[in-house]
Amino acid sequence: MKNKYSLAELRHSTAHLIAHAVTELFPHTLLTIGPATEEGFFYDFLPERNFKEEDLPIITQRMQEIVKRNIPLTHREISKTEAREIFKNNPFKMELIDQIPGDTVGLAEQGDFFDLCRGGHVASTGMLGNFKLLNISGSYWRADRNGQPLQRISGTAFFTAEDLADYERRVQEAEMYDHRRLGKQLDLFSFHDEGVGFPFFHPKGKKIINILTQYLRKLLEADNYQEISTPIMLSDELWRRSGHYAHYKQNMYFCNIDDTTYAIRPMNCPGAILVYKNRPRSYRELPLKFAEFGLVHRHELSGVLHGLLRVRAFTQDDAHIFCTVDQIETEIGKLIAMIFKVFKHLGFENIQMGLSTRPEKSIGSDELWEKATQALINGLKKANCPYIINEGDGAFYGPKIDFLIEDSMKRKWQCSTIQVDFFQPENFDLSYIAPSGKKERPVMIHRVIYGSLERLFAVLLEHHKGNLPFWVSPVQARILTITDEQKEYANTLLAKLQAAGIRAELDETGEQLAAQIKAAQLDKIPWMLVIGKKEVENNTITLRNRDGKQEFGLTLEAILEKAHTLNNQ
Amino acid sequence: MKNKYSLAELRHSTAHLIAHAVTELFPHTLLTIGPATEEGFFYDFLPERNFKEEDLPIITQRMQEIVKRNIPLTHREISKTEAREIFKNNPFKMELIDQIPGDTVGLAEQGDFFDLCRGGHVASTGMLGNFKLLNISGSYWRADRNGQPLQRISGTAFFTAEDLADYERRVQEAEMYDHRRLGKQLDLFSFHDEGVGFPFFHPKGKKIINILTQYLRKLLEADNYQEISTPIMLSDELWRRSGHYAHYKQNMYFCNIDDTTYAIRPMNCPGAILVYKNRPRSYRELPLKFAEFGLVHRHELSGVLHGLLRVRAFTQDDAHIFCTVDQIETEIGKLIAMIFKVFKHLGFENIQMGLSTRPEKSIGSDELWEKATQALINGLKKANCPYIINEGDGAFYGPKIDFLIEDSMKRKWQCSTIQVDFFQPENFDLSYIAPSGKKERPVMIHRVIYGSLERLFAVLLEHHKGNLPFWVSPVQARILTITDEQKEYANTLLAKLQAAGIRAELDETGEQLAAQIKAAQLDKIPWMLVIGKKEVENNTITLRNRDGKQEFGLTLEAILEKAHTLNNQ
Repeated sequence: MKNKYSLAELRHSTAHLIAHAVTELFPHTLLTIGPATEEGFFYDFLPERNFKEEDLPIITQRMQEIVKRNIPLTHREISKTEAREIFKNNPFKMELIDQIPGDTVGLAEQGDFFDLCRGGHVASTGMLGNFKLLNISGSYWRADRNGQPLQRISGTAFFTAEDLADYERRVQEAEMYDHRRLGKQLDLFSFHDEGVGFPFFHPKGKKIINILTQYLRKLLEADNYQEISTPIMLSDELWRRSGHYAHYKQNMYFCNIDDTTYAIRPMNCPGAILVYKNRPRSYRELPLKFAEFGLVHRHELSGVLHGLLRVRAFTQDDAHIFCTVDQIETEIGKLIAMIFKVFKHLGFENIQMGLSTRPEKSIGSDELWEKATQALINGLKKANCPYIINEGDGAFYGPKIDFLIEDSMKRKWQCSTIQVDFFQPENFDLSYIAPSGKKERPVMIHRVIYGSLERLFAVLLEHHKGNLPFWVSPVQARILTITDEQKEYANTLLAKLQAAGIRAELDETGEQLAAQIKAAQLDKIPWMLVIGKKEVENNTITLRNRDGKQEFGLTLEAILEKAHTLNNQ
Repeated sequence: MKNKYSLAELRHSTAHLIAHAVTELFPHTLLTIGPATEEGFFYDFLPERNFKEEDLPIITQRMQEIVKRNIPLTHREISKTEAREIFKNNPFKMELIDQIPGDTVGLAEQGDFFDLCRGGHVASTGMLGNFKLLNISGSYWRADRNGQPLQRISGTAFFTAEDLADYERRVQEAEMYDHRRLGKQLDLFSFHDEGVGFPFFHPKGKKIINILTQYLRKLLEADNYQEISTPIMLSDELWRRSGHYAHYKQNMYFCNIDDTTYAIRPMNCPGAILVYKNRPRSYRELPLKFAEFGLVHRHELSGVLHGLLRVRAFTQDDAHIFCTVDQIETEIGKLIAMIFKVFKHLGFENIQMGLSTRPEKSIGSDELWEKATQALINGLKKANCPYIINEGDGAFYGPKIDFLIEDSMKRKWQCSTIQVDFFQPENFDLSYIAPSGKKERPVMIHRVIYGSLERLFAVLLEHHKGNLPFWVSPVQARILTITDEQKEYANTLLAKLQAAGIRAELDETGEQLAAQIKAAQLDKIPWMLVIGKKEVENNTITLRNRDGKQEFGLTLEAILEKAHTLNNQ
């Protein structure tokens, strides 16, 4: 079955199924559209009366009845004249018919139910039993806030009951390991009404941010990046010139200083450009790679804010590479390698890459686009990983590569991106002195690896269900003693661990060992170093891992060696 | 001579001297006031015609003539009636007479010149020869921008010609080693019209900032500080509550988000307070020390902006210590020790401490003030360094200690401060659970060590005349090779130095050694590691220090040992 039909076809068919059920239950409902989505499907209705949560089981039941009827799904082309007759009482469908090019439109039918439809279905309703309705939300006809308000019922569907159960388990897990919940439990960060959408990092959360920053800094240094730091607000004249004002104004915050309007930066590029332009540059300096851990502010509607995943202020691990077109390929190769290295170290296995190529409207010569796109393709090929091409999906100012990271709950997150930019070097008249002595125009590459440190923080927490990799853990080891008699040994051990750069602490609550272990587990600390009488006598350590696995009689050297390996693997 | 009169008396007498000379030269000039200042003296005139630079030598000459006349300076009290008769043609003096309490005022006289004066002079004009007029600037009567515009002539004066020469040499040095000049020469930072008063740190400048930050982070960790990070803007409701809105509004920047006004933070305390309040705190957590490298924005008039010394955006190495009154003393002791350690490591010798005590208007009980002030005094005493007491000069919410750092040009900079605060814990209803189980109110200590990283950067650069200490230098060592034959050896050496954490680079210009040395000197790099044929043969290194001193035949181990010592001394 899986081979014959796609999941999208199954889900789109399930959208018809819900429309069918709703039409039988509430005949005066007007149908609009019902597409498959990445996660399932939805159908937007203009209902005879507003749907409520209690309606979902009733609709589900009717859908299952129609599944049992096992009605064949058919699809045929009909003339627009016929279609207009069929849908004359539904203004939404009439509007759709008008806008479909050509003289015919598709009609999907299952028994006495029919819908306007481009096609792409499974064979019969009998195949649609493994679905689940998820929620009711508000929407607008054509997603236009000034248009007709509608009600959307969303759901998901799979080919097998196992797949559906697996999905439901993942959803449950996602709730259980929601980063907002973990963040509170582990005392990592908080949000406050005094700064809606602005994260407050508590000591352990800030420690994680610092560890992630320092790790990247080392990689950047080894690859000859140069870190800079530029102001978080700049005059609106600059943002007008950069084009952000025209395209991004509604997401920017503004502030007046003397007679000038300043914008809090939503992006870091103009700062890097000003530093580049601060003095003449030579070809010898290229590729010139300016990195900035740049705090940016972007307005989001308060309704879409979501913990650290969607905030109004975040830090990008940004960099701008100024180089020649011929240098793009090498840089892309290094970048892809760095991205894979970083995410592997962070504990992610699957990365999906997508190349977006030249759109119809674009600037830059054919030769420039061809060279740059080919450089990206060569870089992608060298990575030896599958990638997809999104034809014509690039920005008007250059091609780009997006990276989707898959987490342990099979969700995909866009973190890293590489964007080639022919526009800003023109726009800001950037140049370098070529070997010939003439001024030449560099290309600019914008790129992030983590993307946003805040967002990565959330993804990392959820992916690991709070059990962060040893090297990222704010506290890596906690020493537990069975009685106070081991305190001296424990303190010496603590000092040695800290001197070796291990983030260690000592449980000083004086509780029973079982309670100490429980506390360390709740805090999700990777290592419990248990010290009893025997350990003191033999000058050893018992290592109890977060997962309960124990190793006895370890020497300090063995522990340090282990930590070193985990920190660097 | 130095013992009998103070420098302030000498300088105030020189202010009379210039008024005397100006009165002789331009008899229609109206005199206003002429005090001694920290750096010299000034006199504010309403001139008969505007003074120009060319007038300064003429006035200087006349002043020297009056010095030669060696006229005795006398001072006596006269009745206000007599004074009003004497000064009836000078509305400024008339206003001053009105405002002086009591029935008499002071009159200073030297020959036929007289001035309204509180007193405090040297014996005769013969002692006033070692002065220098510095500049003419605009001022206002009573420093009121809406008041009468005046012209100020500023100068300085010393007891001996040597002191004056010394001063002039220091001024010249200060110009030569102005951090703005060094910053450009060494490519450390820049300012741009697109962000007036907002520094842009270039790679080497940002490296210095990172080094300074990392150094402090280590000290903070060792003393159980916990780093946090809070938003750079918060709702104006919070700033109203904190009192910043009432007292500091004109220096703050504002921004609208949805229906709320946000202020870009001018200080970091409210963020730390919100994190403290995020969950109940126990006495076991005290002293709780939240550190934040917090970016703040404060409005300054564009006219007073001055490189990195006076900016509109800077990063404070801030910390807020929440503790009991009994814990203040220990914390102050640790803080003073840390401040001395840090500034010694930065290469400063002299630190002057001042304690500001309870002002008349203040909050908090007598007992609280007494305990806290005594704790500060005990801390100061333990430091075994002289300190002064500024009676009644504390903030209304608690006593404080200021630290003045003296640089190589004898200028004093306020960097570190420790401020005890009884107000915000009340204001924000902060509490901790005491051993008794009852809620108690903590005390808050605000403290900075560097003060502002940007300002410290400038002070450090000027103090060292660009020759930053080895451990702060963005590039610590540059390898110079005599011919290309040593490149392989040099590259191996470079890799080893970098692996050992030394910030090293290789001169790849292919220039003659002399040119390479000159370039390294211009870049003020502490170590030139010179590699010739002999060094390759013997597997050694010649170390040429920034000051020209050379050491031959060093092993890599010796170099690493030296670097380690310098990094940690």
